[in-house]
Order: sequence, then structure tokens, then C-alpha cells
Amino acid sequence: MWKLTALLGTISTITYVSAQTFQRLGACPTLGCVFPPDQTDFLPGQLFDIRLEVHAPVNGSEAYNGGVPDEKFAFCVQRDGTGSCVNAAQFFKVSEPKLEKWSFSYYEDLFAWDKKNPSVVNVAAKAYRALSLTQPGSYTAILTYYGQKRTVARWLVREPAPKAKAKNVILFIGDGMTQSAITAARLIGHKSINGKYQSLLQMDKMDNLGHQMTHSLDSFITDSANSASALLTGKKSTVDTLNIWKDSSADAFDDPKIETIAELFRRTKKGLVGIVTTAFVADATPAAMCTHTQTRLEYKSIVYEYLYGTAGITPSLHWPTGCDGPDVLFGGGAERFIPGPDSPHGLDFYKAFKDRGYKLVQTKEQLLKAGNDAKTLGIFTKSNLAKWLDRNVYPENLKNQHNSPTGDGSDALDQPGLKEMTLKAIDILQNRSKSDDKGWFLLSEAASIDKMMHFLDYDRALGDLLELDDTVRATIEHLKRSGQYENTLIVVTADHGHGFDVFGGADTEYIAAQSDDRKKRYGVGVYDNSGLSGYQVAAGSLPTNNTIVIGPQGPGFPVQWQPRYALAAGTVASTDRREGYKVNTKGPRVPVVASSNKGEYVRNPDDQPTEGTIPVNQLAATHSLQDVSVFANGPGADAFRGVYSNIDIFYKMADALGLGSEHALDIERSPSADSSAQITFQA
Amino acid sequence: MWKLTALLGTISTITYVSAQTFQRLGACPTLGCVFPPDQTDFLPGQLFDIRLEVHAPVNGSEAYNGGVPDEKFAFCVQRDGTGSCVNAAQFFKVSEPKLEKWSFSYYEDLFAWDKKNPSVVNVAAKAYRALSLTQPGSYTAILTYYGQKRTVARWLVREPAPKAKAKNVILFIGDGMTQSAITAARLIGHKSINGKYQSLLQMDKMDNLGHQMTHSLDSFITDSANSASALLTGKKSTVDTLNIWKDSSADAFDDPKIETIAELFRRTKKGLVGIVTTAFVADATPAAMCTHTQTRLEYKSIVYEYLYGTAGITPSLHWPTGCDGPDVLFGGGAERFIPGPDSPHGLDFYKAFKDRGYKLVQTKEQLLKAGNDAKTLGIFTKSNLAKWLDRNVYPENLKNQHNSPTGDGSDALDQPGLKEMTLKAIDILQNRSKSDDKGWFLLSEAASIDKMMHFLDYDRALGDLLELDDTVRATIEHLKRSGQYENTLIVVTADHGHGFDVFGGADTEYIAAQSDDRKKRYGVGVYDNSGLSGYQVAAGSLPTNNTIVIGPQGPGFPVQWQPRYALAAGTVASTDRREGYKVNTKGPRVPVVASSNKGEYVRNPDDQPTEGTIPVNQLAATHSLQDVSVFANGPGADAFRGVYSNIDIFYKMADALGLGSEHALDIERSPSADSSAQITFQA
Repeated sequence: MWKLTALLGTISTITYVSAQTFQRLGACPTLGCVFPPDQTDFLPGQLFDIRLEVHAPVNGSEAYNGGVPDEKFAFCVQRDGTGSCVNAAQFFKVSEPKLEKWSFSYYEDLFAWDKKNPSVVNVAAKAYRALSLTQPGSYTAILTYYGQKRTVARWLVREPAPKAKAKNVILFIGDGMTQSAITAARLIGHKSINGKYQSLLQMDKMDNLGHQMTHSLDSFITDSANSASALLTGKKSTVDTLNIWKDSSADAFDDPKIETIAELFRRTKKGLVGIVTTAFVADATPAAMCTHTQTRLEYKSIVYEYLYGTAGITPSLHWPTGCDGPDVLFGGGAERFIPGPDSPHGLDFYKAFKDRGYKLVQTKEQLLKAGNDAKTLGIFTKSNLAKWLDRNVYPENLKNQHNSPTGDGSDALDQPGLKEMTLKAIDILQNRSKSDDKGWFLLSEAASIDKMMHFLDYDRALGDLLELDDTVRATIEHLKRSGQYENTLIVVTADHGHGFDVFGGADTEYIAAQSDDRKKRYGVGVYDNSGLSGYQVAAGSLPTNNTIVIGPQGPGFPVQWQPRYALAAGTVASTDRREGYKVNTKGPRVPVVASSNKGEYVRNPDDQPTEGTIPVNQLAATHSLQDVSVFANGPGADAFRGVYSNIDIFYKMADALGLGSEHALDIERSPSADSSAQITFQA
Repeated sequence: MWKLTALLGTISTITYVSAQTFQRLGACPTLGCVFPPDQTDFLPGQLFDIRLEVHAPVNGSEAYNGGVPDEKFAFCVQRDGTGSCVNAAQFFKVSEPKLEKWSFSYYEDLFAWDKKNPSVVNVAAKAYRALSLTQPGSYTAILTYYGQKRTVARWLVREPAPKAKAKNVILFIGDGMTQSAITAARLIGHKSINGKYQSLLQMDKMDNLGHQMTHSLDSFITDSANSASALLTGKKSTVDTLNIWKDSSADAFDDPKIETIAELFRRTKKGLVGIVTTAFVADATPAAMCTHTQTRLEYKSIVYEYLYGTAGITPSLHWPTGCDGPDVLFGGGAERFIPGPDSPHGLDFYKAFKDRGYKLVQTKEQLLKAGNDAKTLGIFTKSNLAKWLDRNVYPENLKNQHNSPTGDGSDALDQPGLKEMTLKAIDILQNRSKSDDKGWFLLSEAASIDKMMHFLDYDRALGDLLELDDTVRATIEHLKRSGQYENTLIVVTADHGHGFDVFGGADTEYIAAQSDDRKKRYGVGVYDNSGLSGYQVAAGSLPTNNTIVIGPQGPGFPVQWQPRYALAAGTVASTDRREGYKVNTKGPRVPVVASSNKGEYVRNPDDQPTEGTIPVNQLAATHSLQDVSVFANGPGADAFRGVYSNIDIFYKMADALGLGSEHALDIERSPSADSSAQITFQA
């Protein structure tokens, strides 16, 4: 099996420890675990795996049965109202899977982490691969273990839409684009006179407005991997995971998979798939279209899976769906394609794509001149694409980066922006789909809104946000010109919030002229460890306790106000930093540098001229809880009004495309038309 | 005239200096000023004053004409497309007002403020009182001065709705209720299992969702006074002002007035008016229903105006509209009613209200037992009402406050909450309006969301937010039971954002167990001086320059990225403080205390166990820029979808009520049915 070998090629806020931290396993408060977990919704015919685990903690507060897990657990599924609970293998008409066994460890809390005192858990497990539920309705799945212990999962297969409304879908994701950033972008990008804006953002003018709740399966703060997976599969999952439910095994590729809307559209309707990002193409948001792994850092496997599907990564695990090579893949991340230590098995992956019929473009000029007939790979730089502000205002900053996508050590000076990539992607998708009218699904991500927010570089974040808005505007015009506007659902949203708001104006001159830090002030005006709400469990219970308790003030109010795991709220996450409110004209801002304490960061004395709340092993700013906005136009767009969960966006898009129909049962089609050309990976 | 004598009876973030700061006068970038300013919208027949000023700065960067203002300025108004610009007195069929003259001073920037070097301006001015424009369409108003100088104001009288959809309106305002706080309140108030909420906020379930842009007339951050005025008059104005455009004269009561929806509804439809707040009743948000002054701190005049209108405050200024004594006035602020230094002219204002036929209630028990026939004044405490958390969870904190509304020095232990006050207000309004079916307009404010956010006391802020949500739920049920739900437009929104978001969970035990401040961090995860956007004027221009300039990247992008007055953005406003994420069980949190430097604050060493960006003369957290959410149900509610300005909420509510019709011209009706009983105030 593919091993966790990817290095942190780009800056990330992910913290790796030697074991899981603070929860034995997400969505598994008891010793028996069922994935898909309780409360999971499905589209009829959508493929998924089942993972069952029985835990026997050896030590720690949950130690049980001398550390010996029950290997004779039973699992049945019942369609509600249709009689008895039927053994799962029989219910799904598959053979009984073999028993698996492993051990893992985790830290129960920060005190255990300080003492390096993990709790060890022995596990007995099974997995059922590539199943589906085709009949709408509610289901009850029951795991029975240790004699009388039961874990019950209530599943819901939603009614599909009676017919398709849209032929195509474009999903724009502004990564980390919180409403406060949209408001700030409007302020710096549009003129107002006496309180009246003279022009508005394209987002402001969209026909439908909604809010999505972005929390994760097992923590209330999310990241780009599991949030994009929620948008694209209709399933809540764990921070850092891509289209799987995270199990407790060490293998990053054996976790139970979930079919994405891109895979489903490809498999059941032969629809075309396009991916455009200003990040490297193996980054979490684009990867969520087509790939499956426990950790978003498996960059090499992600690029591999784009082209070949999962068969070469997990040859023993049946997964008869995939993107089959997206028709368009545009972004950065050339280091995964140039043969060498960062590419899959050291191979030339430009060649691997070309061998599968792809045209390759590596500059904006090549992009704009390329035809619209072939599948097209556009890789324009190593790592992330340059920011809108640097490309358009400070182009000198593109020099001396040695980041050419060719790998020749020159600079990637001719990089396209989100708009050029998106419009070209539409042309290719439309041209390739027109003969048989299959339709297409395009993801277009403005990735560096979030990336720059993480570095407190609000100028660049807002620049890229305005570029996204301009791209949406240009896309609508482009679709209207080509006659596809009436056929295309357009959704613009974010994947999660990012603690940020504007609270005043800064007199930078006055600030610069003061020597006293307090006088300067007159010149103005975390992720998977965040856990669940401690306010809705009885005092003394862990936040992971799923018992519904009504507090003394009744439903709708907290059960307790003094939980051990309280809400960390403030104005908002801050790290060691200096502040001066001036644009960084020489390139992206560097607010923190490595501390003399290994793994920690301190404020950069050379950063802006003028102290923190987040862990000192975190680089800078962090994601936040708040609902994010959804804007939508086109056929099916009125479903995007109101307040709903991020997973609902999957069902709204699927309904617009008419997915979940009888074609969803055609699961035997190979994910690759030419599997003989596939490179198979082994341990 | 009434003078600025009100003391800061409750904690406020308003800073008073001896002159205006940093702008000569808002909405007046040239030397000639017209109020209503350029870009103003009106409802047909809505009353307003006109103020004209011609400025002659004596010194400073704008010094002109030796400091002698042109006294022979001319002002004309033209209905677009109908011929010539007609002298205003002739256009409005009023006599030519007398010339007024005064001087004022202001600080051009912080350097001038440091040096105590104000710029002096001599002014020639005129005012036209109680006018209206009854014909929908666009108008051009032109002030000509100093020979050829011209200031042009473009006004728009909007088309009224053809007929009323709703009989009643309830406007709920969660003060400072940003979407991040709503999201946080959902998290602590409602249970989720594996990422699926088992119940939702009432706000989440409303039929219509919108966003309102909250910026002020002359600064991009707003306060509760001018933001509530925007919601209730459809006009942008200046921070701290109530239903006026701020002129440059020292008099707090001669500024040009604007008729509120409550006044308009009362005057033209004899509709009933109710006001409910958890603040003191003279606070900015409730005051915006019925009162007019340059500064929200004129608490005594506000209470006076509730009862008698403006005639006794400004007897020489014609203003033939008013609330005429609201049918319901519930909240705190007994110090303005108990005879003494804080009440209007030292009089017993309980008696003044009773003399006008009001029933008085002072406890929750009295409130619930009161009949529904009489106009009712409910004053339940001195200052603000107790917070939901203290009333419901920590009632010991209500003791030893010596805040009884009777003034007898006992404790106000039996205070109602927002829900009890709101439901009773509905009963009184409905009962009093039922005989002739006039309808009613109720404002219900959850004031302490913002007040507690200012003190970083997020527990109490979220408690009061959940109380608001519970009140909205109970109101819908109550209206359905009484058969008024189909007749009543319900709007739930905020007046402005407040920098806040949730970024993780905090292990309070671990934090308490650490002695090192950096190690503790592993236990987790300002207003009128903010000015206008410097990003949309040419380099070297002030942000107040209204010339439309297109930047090198075209419309929709900044003109410059390095303005002197840049965006102050961060994660977010912070002051000196300590943090520990634990609920304050002994009463509201005190994060800062007075510094040895007069007028400054430092963190409280006795606050939570574990440094800042805003001016050190600010108490704690500050308002923020971001759009706030709008939720609406009932007749006319679908107009509240999408993204719009806060002023648009006035027009949407007015359209629902069918205001702006021929009745709007009936302006000769006295604001008080019994003016002989009125106390007239003089200088």
C-alpha cells in the first residue's frame, strides 16, 4: 500500500503527532464504530464503503475486556418499516469480508500529551466495499458486540429530483472566504458616495443568497479537505480527510470511501469534469473532486488518482468509480509532474498525462492559444500560482522564484489568473461535451484568499477575492454569449470561515511617526483538536457524548455553562505578530519566523512596525466557526436560499443535474478506459 | 435650546473631543454643504428638513476667502425632466429662511490633534423645516456660492408600493449581532450529532434570508444610533446621531431632521407604536424610533421627546410629526424618570407619563398582570436590564445593585426578559388597535448582545442572543394563536457587526495548570474616525474626495493599494486583556480597569488567567464592518432576500405597510393631542 511519504511541500497549518489526539476516534463515542456513521444522508445509488470497528482500550479511562476486542461482532441493516434487520452481507448481496486486526494509540488530553502517555487500543474490524442504497427512505444499521452492546446508525437515502434542471454546474469556492472578507473586498473594490455604493460585487447581485454551516463531523472547526468533501459528497467527515470516513488504522488508503458528485456524474451520465485552482492541483480543495485518502498531504497519490483512479493505489479494494482523468486540470504544483523525488514514483507525470491523450500548457500564452478539443493539463508554476496583487500590481515579485513548471530553474513569469483559466476550462468542457450533450461540472477555486489570510496578508487575500468576483462576472457574460447561461447552475461559496473583520481605519503616517507602542494604537481604530460543544452535555460528560440532555432552561439553551471544554472565542485568533496596516509591496508578508524553540514561531522583527491566543506551534491566523455565504444563479439556483448545512449543497447540485436516478446502479464500469497503461503501486 | 448636559450614565465607547475630528463635516467634501446630501432617497411625503452651509476655513489646508463665508449663496431644486431649477422657497412654497452664522473648529488629522492645533471655519447657513417631496422621481438640488462654485445633490423619491401587504410590523434588532455570533449561539444552544444539528435556531428556519450593508454616511464603521436611524428612516447618517443629518453648529437640536417610519405610520395611518428594549429606554436603538438629536447622549431630551415630541425642545423649529407618546415603552433607565438630576428638568417623569394616561409597571409580576387597554410604560430597573444569564443562571448577581426602578434603593430583583416584554407589548398593541384596525409597529431590541461583546463577555452576549431567538419563536407562536400571524411582517436583523468569531476549543483545566503564558496557549485553539475608503481615490487625494476614478486594473478593483488612510484589518480589534475562556459566574466580566494615565484603560489583573490594536482610550472590543444577516417571515417578507443597504430595510417595511400614499401629505396635525400639558424647555 501507498505509505505516508509526502513532505510538507507548501506551508500548512496541520499539526502531526505520533497518535490521534483527544478523541479515540471521531463519530465513535462508544466501543463499537460504524461508518457511515449515524445521521448520514445518501443520494440513491451513490457508492460508499462500510467500515466496522470494535475497540478494546488496553489502558486509560476507557480500558475494557483486558484489551481483547470482540472478533465475533455482528452487523445488520434494516430498511425502516420493512421487517427485520438483515445481516449486511446478505442485505447488500456481497460476501462476508474478512476480519482485520490492528492497534492504535491516542492521547486522551493535553496532560497525557505532555507526559507522552498514550492510551493503546486493540481493534477488530471489517470493511464492505463499493456498496449503494438505491431506495429512498430511512435505514437502521446495528452493530452488536461484546454480547449486548449495540451501536445504532440511522441513515437516510434522500428522494432524488424527478428530473434534471441544469445541464452544467460551476462551483466557485473562495477558500476561507468569510462574509467579513466579502464586505471588506466590496469596501476597497467599489466606490460609495454618502453611504450609497455606486457599484456592487457580482456576488451581491446574484439571484439567490444562502448560508451554509461548515462544522466538521467531529470538531466544530473545519479545514479545506473535509469541507470540500462535504460540498462534493454530501457527507460530514474529519479534518484533513478527502472523501473518506477516517478509521483508526494506520493505512492512509484503506478508510471507507465516498463517491463524489464528479465521480457520480461521470459514472452515471458520462458528464465531463473540470478542475481549476490557483493552488497547486494536489491541494485539498481540487483534490476533493476526484480523490480519496485519510490525509490531504498525500500529494503524490492525489496526482496519481486524478489520472488512474484508485485501482493502482489500493488494488485489492473494489472502487468501480472515479474521475477517469478530468477533462481539464489547471493550477500549480509542477513539482508533482517534473520527474524527481516529489513526483509519483519519481516518474515524469507530464508524460503520463500526455500518454493518456492530454494536451499540456505551461504559460498563459499557451493556455489562451490552445484548442478546445483535447483533455488539457495546465500546470503554470511550482507550488501555488502567484497572487493577483503580485501578477497585476507588483510583477517584479514574480522574478527570481526559480519556479518554472518546466523545472528548468527559470521563473514562471507568464502565469494566468483564475479568470483566464476558468473561461478556457468552460470552452474546453463545452466543446468536448457538445456532440452528445452530456453536460459538464467545473470546480473553480480561488485558493489564496485563505492562504493569504493565514499570513495576515489581507491585501493579497482581498485582491484574490476581487479576482474571484471578477471571474464570476466574466463567467456569466461568457455563458450568455455562448448560449449556455440558461443551462448552467452557478454556485459561489466558501468552504469555511477565517477569523477576520475590519474594525476601523489606520493612519499609517501617524503610526510610523510614533515611537511609543501604545501611542501607535491611537493611529487606528485551531482545527481537529477543537472538539465538540461541551455546552450540550451534562456536567462531567465528555463533549463526544451523544446523549440528548435538556438543560434547566429547556431546549435551545446550554445544558451547562461551565464545561471543561469551553468555547474559545475572542476578537479573534492571534499569534505573535507586529502590525502596521501597510501593503507589503515586495511580496507576501512574513509575520512570523522560526523560534529558537523547535517547532514554534515568534513574531518577525522585520514585519510591520507595531502579542497571541493560538498554540505557539501554529503559524498565524486560523479558520473560524461562522456560517459562510452561498450565492447562486441559474437553473436549480432557488434551492440555495436560506440556511442549511454544507452537505446540503451536494444534494442541491445533484438535484439540479438530476443525479440519483436509475443510471446510478451502473457500477461495473471501469474507472479507466485503458487500465493496461496504468502504473500499479505496491507497498 | 436644550444643551448638552447629559452625563455618561452608562458605559459607552463614544469619545468626545473639543472639536470635530479629521473631517470638516461629513457628506460635505467641498465648501458648500447640502443636507439632504447627494444620493439621498425618500419615501413620497416623508418629512425632512434642509440645511445649507457655506464654509470659509480661516486656517488649515482649506483656508479660503480670508475666512469670510459667502452669505449670498443660492439654492434651487429641479424635478428632473421638468424644466428649470427653481429657488427652493418657491419650489417648496415656504418663505425664505433667515441667514444664520457661526464658527466651528476641527482637527485635520492626528498630528493637528496632538499639537492641539484646530482649523477654524466660519459658516453662513440656512435651514428649511418640515418639507416633503410627494412625486416619485429624481431631483437635482444645486447650491451656488462664491460666485461659480456649485454643490449638486441628486435625490431620488422612490415609487411607493401600490397597496399595503401587512397590517403590523415587528422589527427585532439584535444589537451587534454578527453572523459569527449567531453561529456560535447555535453551537452552544443546539445539539449536533456527527455533524447534523438536531434542532436549529428560529432564525435559521425563517422563510427569507438577506444581508444588509451597515456602513455610515461618512465612515465605514457604524454605531447603534445612526444604524438604527438608517433602518427606521431610509437615510444614511453620521455615527452617534439620531434621525438627523449632522450639521456644523454646536446646537445638538437644530440639525436637519428626518421623519421615522414610526412617525410616518402614526401621522399618516394613525398606527400604533411600541418600543421594547433590554437597554435603558433612552439608549440609541429605542431612541431611533421617535427622537431627533445630534448626539445619542441627550438622554433627558430623548425621554422628553418620547412623550411630548420636539415642540418643547425646539419651539421655533416647525416639526409637525412625532410618535405622540408610544403606546408601549418597556425597558430600563429609571434614572430618567425618578425626579432628580438625571430626569428632564428634575421632574417626576413617571408622573408626566401617568398624567398623559399611561399605566406604569415596574416588575415582571406587574407587567404580566397588567391589562391591555391603556398606553403602558414599563421601567424595570435603573440603567440596562439584567442579562439573561444572570436572571436565569446566576440570580444572586441581581442582589445588592440598589437599582430598583422606584428609586427606593432596593434591588430590581423581579425583572422581565425580552420575551415577556415583547409578548405583552403585542397584546397591548393588538388590543388597542383592534377597534379601528389601524395596525401597529413594534421595535424589540436585544441590546446586551452588543453591550456584552464590548466587554468580551461572550457568555452573556450569546445568552441574550439565544433569548432573542427564543423571543422570535415565541412571538410567531403567539401571533398564530391570536390570528395575527398572516397580518404581521416579522424582520429579525442586527444594526452592525461586532468583531468576533470562534476559532477553537479551550481546555480550561490545562490552561489553569500551566504557569507559562506561551504554554497556556497550547490549551486552545473602533467608529466615526474610521473615515472612508482610501482605496477608491487617486493617490494624494483624501478619502472624502467623491470623484469617481478608475484604477489601472479597471472598475471593481482598488485605484491605489497604498493609501495614507488604509484599511485597519486584523483578527480583530483587541485591547489590553487577559483570557481564560471561562464563564464569569459572579457577574459581568471586567476585562479592563482605569489606567494611571487619565482616560486610558489597562487590562484587569484580576480578570481571566492568561496584548492590543485599538486606541488606548477605548474600553474593549469594537464594532466591525461586515454585512449583517436579515431574516424575515410574513406578508412582504420575500422582499428581504438578497444583499442590500441597511436603508433599504426602511423602504421594504414601508412598502409592506403601504406607506408613502396620499395620506403622507397630511402634515398639519399636531404631534401632541394636548399641547397645553406640555413642559416647554428653553436655554
